[in-house]
Amino acid sequence: MKIITSHVQVSTTGPGDLINITEKITALLEKTKLQNGQITVFNIGSTAAIATFEFEPGLMKDVQELFEKLIPRSKHHHHDETWGDANGFSHLRAMLQGPSLVIPFSNGKALLGTWQQVVLAEFDNRPRQRDVVVQILGE
Amino acid sequence: MKIITSHVQVSTTGPGDLINITEKITALLEKTKLQNGQITVFNIGSTAAIATFEFEPGLMKDVQELFEKLIPRSKHHHHDETWGDANGFSHLRAMLQGPSLVIPFSNGKALLGTWQQVVLAEFDNRPRQRDVVVQILGE
Amino acid sequence: MKIITSHVQVSTTGPGDLINITEKITALLEKTKLQNGQITVFNIGSTAAIATFEFEPGLMKDVQELFEKLIPRSKHHHHDETWGDANGFSHLRAMLQGPSLVIPFSNGKALLGTWQQVVLAEFDNRPRQRDVVVQILGE
Repeated sequence: MKIITSHVQVSTTGPGDLINITEKITALLEKTKLQNGQITVFNIGSTAAIATFEFEPGLMKDVQELFEKLIPRSKHHHHDETWGDANGFSHLRAMLQGPSLVIPFSNGKALLGTWQQVVLAEFDNRPRQRDVVVQILGE
Repeated sequence: MKIITSHVQVSTTGPGDLINITEKITALLEKTKLQNGQITVFNIGSTAAIATFEFEPGLMKDVQELFEKLIPRSKHHHHDETWGDANGFSHLRAMLQGPSLVIPFSNGKALLGTWQQVVLAEFDNRPRQRDVVVQILGE
Repeated sequence: MKIITSHVQVSTTGPGDLINITEKITALLEKTKLQNGQITVFNIGSTAAIATFEFEPGLMKDVQELFEKLIPRSKHHHHDETWGDANGFSHLRAMLQGPSLVIPFSNGKALLGTWQQVVLAEFDNRPRQRDVVVQILGE
């Protein structure tokens, strides 16, 4: 049994940016040569999240509109008074969606559906450099 | 330390179907004879999700009504134009709830509460055959 | 590779109580002396959840207001008729937020952001004694 911890660096363009990191994850898995186990994907930080969905332009718009409906950017949040950076909505969206995901793999392949991509969802109100941990545990 | 990857096949009746898979998971755990470790439950596919809640008819209705309120089926989504299959709402519900869950076990028992069942939530707009990965890692 | 399963006991004051358990988790990690691996945090029970967010008073109010908006306490739920304990809203909030989280660690440190605390969110309508599993797996 081995544990291999890697980091994927992602540059985002700001709020609503959705970045497909599936190929980066599966490339890391292939390099390990491990056959069975699990991949933990974890976003370090509190204003972005990890999601899985079909990565196509229509659904990307739907995802952005859903978060805008549930947690509107225009709403004033108490957090906005704490640091003056007006990103209370970003924190709430990231909390609700969650920072982590565990994906099993077997025969050296991640057990994802064909239309199930792993996506970094940027919720902050400005471009960010994201550090996503990809930890592969298996044999 | 061992890793044992199994698949649970579930037939669903369509949107809003909630299927208690707790006993299938605990039966797989017992078969492994492992004593300490974790169970990763992962739904392959982008229009169903994994949830934990008390599996009783009243709450099942509440769960269905909650998703209908947050992400109404009647709303037109951009994704509906991509494939013409009118299930944008299914994708959004599945993304928000999430495809995976990790449950620790010790002394050979899953550390779930008495009223905490593991449930496959079907969000697609038609019956589906679901393939849920149950990966057990432990000693 | 080792697996060490611990329990963190938390007393909550009732609905909306948010308790920062980050230091309890990192103290358990230090005691193991393990260097690389993952921490699974799992709330046993169906009316509380695990979240990560910046633990500061403004955002704590925002989190409480968000759940009140998405799943109002005043709404009558079908579940309230099942046991007569009027906590349907608690179950739904806990389901949506989720009971578990997996955090990677390396060089003996949990890979959390500076403003990314691990929080037990009490959603029940009365004070509870919570039992949170912290399972550390690594080498």
